Amino acid sequence: MTDSCCGIVIDIVFLGTGGSIPTAGRNHPSIVVRHSGWNLMLDCGEDTQRQFEFAGLGQNKKMSIMISHMHGDHVLGLGGLLLRFSLLGRIKPLEIYGPPELIPYVKMNQATINLGTTFKTTVYGINSGILFDADNLQVRAFEVDHRGLAFGFELTYQRPTGEFNPKEARKLGVPKGPLWGKLADGKSVKLSNGKEIRPEDVTGPKPKPLKIVYSGDTRPCDSLRKTAEGATVLISEAMYTSEHLDLAEERGHMTAASAAEIAKSSGVKLLVLTHYSPRYENGEEILDEARAVFPDAILATDLMRIRLNATGESTVFHQDLQT
Amino acid sequence: MTDSCCGIVIDIVFLGTGGSIPTAGRNHPSIVVRHSGWNLMLDCGEDTQRQFEFAGLGQNKKMSIMISHMHGDHVLGLGGLLLRFSLLGRIKPLEIYGPPELIPYVKMNQATINLGTTFKTTVYGINSGILFDADNLQVRAFEVDHRGLAFGFELTYQRPTGEFNPKEARKLGVPKGPLWGKLADGKSVKLSNGKEIRPEDVTGPKPKPLKIVYSGDTRPCDSLRKTAEGATVLISEAMYTSEHLDLAEERGHMTAASAAEIAKSSGVKLLVLTHYSPRYENGEEILDEARAVFPDAILATDLMRIRLNATGESTVFHQDLQT
Repeated sequence: MTDSCCGIVIDIVFLGTGGSIPTAGRNHPSIVVRHSGWNLMLDCGEDTQRQFEFAGLGQNKKMSIMISHMHGDHVLGLGGLLLRFSLLGRIKPLEIYGPPELIPYVKMNQATINLGTTFKTTVYGINSGILFDADNLQVRAFEVDHRGLAFGFELTYQRPTGEFNPKEARKLGVPKGPLWGKLADGKSVKLSNGKEIRPEDVTGPKPKPLKIVYSGDTRPCDSLRKTAEGATVLISEAMYTSEHLDLAEERGHMTAASAAEIAKSSGVKLLVLTHYSPRYENGEEILDEARAVFPDAILATDLMRIRLNATGESTVFHQDLQT
Repeated sequence: MTDSCCGIVIDIVFLGTGGSIPTAGRNHPSIVVRHSGWNLMLDCGEDTQRQFEFAGLGQNKKMSIMISHMHGDHVLGLGGLLLRFSLLGRIKPLEIYGPPELIPYVKMNQATINLGTTFKTTVYGINSGILFDADNLQVRAFEVDHRGLAFGFELTYQRPTGEFNPKEARKLGVPKGPLWGKLADGKSVKLSNGKEIRPEDVTGPKPKPLKIVYSGDTRPCDSLRKTAEGATVLISEAMYTSEHLDLAEERGHMTAASAAEIAKSSGVKLLVLTHYSPRYENGEEILDEARAVFPDAILATDLMRIRLNATGESTVFHQDLQT
C-alpha cells in the first residue's frame, strides 16, 4: 500500500478470523490496518506471527498494537510476535495498547521466556478516549459490553489534501518530482524563483475522513452504535446467528443480525463480519443473516484484504494460505 | 493406537518440527507420544492446540506435558492449549513438568487471561531424575547443554509380558474375551473351574524395553550420549548443517552431523531429526548430512507419525494438513 496523492490509502488485512477456537481455515483473531507503511494491529491471537509472515507485512515497519481485552484468543500471540521480531532483528520501537493487565502480562512474558528483545517495547494501559493522533490518523478506544473490561477501536484517517491536480501544478511551474509529493501531503513548497505554492493551489477539496471501527468482543451496545455512525468500514464480531441469541447474551457477543442492525442504523458504508464461531465454518449462515438486514455486508476470511481509496471505495482481495 | 496383546504399542506424533521461527509448512516444536490412550507431550510451542486438533489426539485423554526449557518456541502454546481444553470442557486433570520458572508462568497465564479452566492443572518444577513411573512407562529428565536450564527426556516402556499365544490360551481353557486382555497385561486370571492361569503360561519372553529419547535443545553433550545408549528412537534437534557449526556452538544447538554421531556411537535404532532451521525448508541438507554418518535417520515433518510395535520396529505415516 502506498499513500500516493490520488490512489490507495488504507489496507485492512485480516490475519485471523476464527472464533474462540481456531479451525484449519481460520486462525485466532488479529487484523492489521496499514497506512503509509505503518502497521496498526487490532488484537493478537495465538500464532499471529505466522499469519503476519504469510501476509508479507514486514517485521521492521512502524507498528502499534491495540489489544481489545485480556481473553486468551485475543492476546496469546503477543509473546510469539515479540520473539519473532527479536529473532529477525527488529530495531524499531513497538507500542502496545490495552487494558491495564496487559502491562504485567507482557513484562512477565519478557522476563520468563527469554524474549531477548532487540527493540524497545512500551505497553500502555488504556481507558476510553484518544490513544494517539499522528500522521493524519487518530486512534480512539471506546469501552464495550463483553465480560470484564473490553474495548473497541475507532481509526479515523483525515487526508491532508484533496486530489492532486498535476495539470494545475505544471501550470503554476511546479516540476514533477518530490515537490508534488510534498504538496499532496499538505505542505507548502517554494519554487526556485521564490514563489510559494500552497497545497490548496494544486489539490481539490478534502475528502470526508475515512473511519474504520472495530467492535472488539461485545454485546450490542450504545458506545459501538454511536462510534459506528457514518463509518466507512465497521468490522464487527458476529459470533452467532440469531438462533443462538441466548448464548450471545450470556457470553457477551453479537449475532450477525445485531451487527447488521447497528450497521444499518449507524449509516455504515461497509460491514465486515469476523470472529464467528467454528460451528459456522464457511460462515454462510452468518452472512445470509446479516445481508437480510444490511446488504452491504461481507464475511472476513483469513488473509483477506480490503483496500480503501481516498473516497472510501473498497476493493476486496483474497490470498490463499501459502503451503 | 491400541496397546493390544501383540500389535502396536506406541505412536510418536510430530505436531511441530519448525526451528525457532515457524514456516508455512512447519509449526513450533511439539511432539506427542501416545501409549495406551495416554498423551505425553514433549514441548508445546505456539499454536500447538491447532496441530493437536489436526492430529485428532482427543482433548479429554489422560495427558502429561513435559517442557524442556523456557524458551518461547517451546512453551508459548501452553496457554492456548489450556484455553482450548477449557472451552471444550476437559475434565481430566493435567500434569505439566518443566523448569521451576514454569510454575509462575502457568499461574500468571491462568490469572491474567481468563483461562477459566474446567479441570485441575498441576505444574511440577523438575530436576534431573525420574519424573514418574506408571502404566509400564517411566519418564526421566536429564539436563542438557543449551542456554540456561534445559532438559531432555527419556521415555522407557517395558511391556508387562511377551507376545500373547492364543493357541496356548485355548489349550489351557481360557475363553477368548477379557481374560485374554488381562493375561496380556501381565495379570493372572482365575477360570470358572477355579484354575489359575499366570501370564507366563500363555505369553512368550518379554521383549526388550522400548526407549524413546528426546534431546530437547542442546549442544552435543555426555548426558544425551549416555541416555541415548541403546535407544529405540532418538529424537534429536538438528538446527544446522556443519557449515554453521559456529552458530550451533554459539546458540547451543546440534548440527545434523553431531546428532548422527551420537546416534551411531550410542547404538540407536532410529534417529529422527527435528527442530531444524527455516533456512532448510524441506530439510534435505539436514537429512543428507546425517545419513552420511548414520544411515538409519529420517526427517520429522509436521503431523508425521512413527508407530512402534512391541519389538521396536517402526512404521512411518504422513498426514496432510487438513485445510
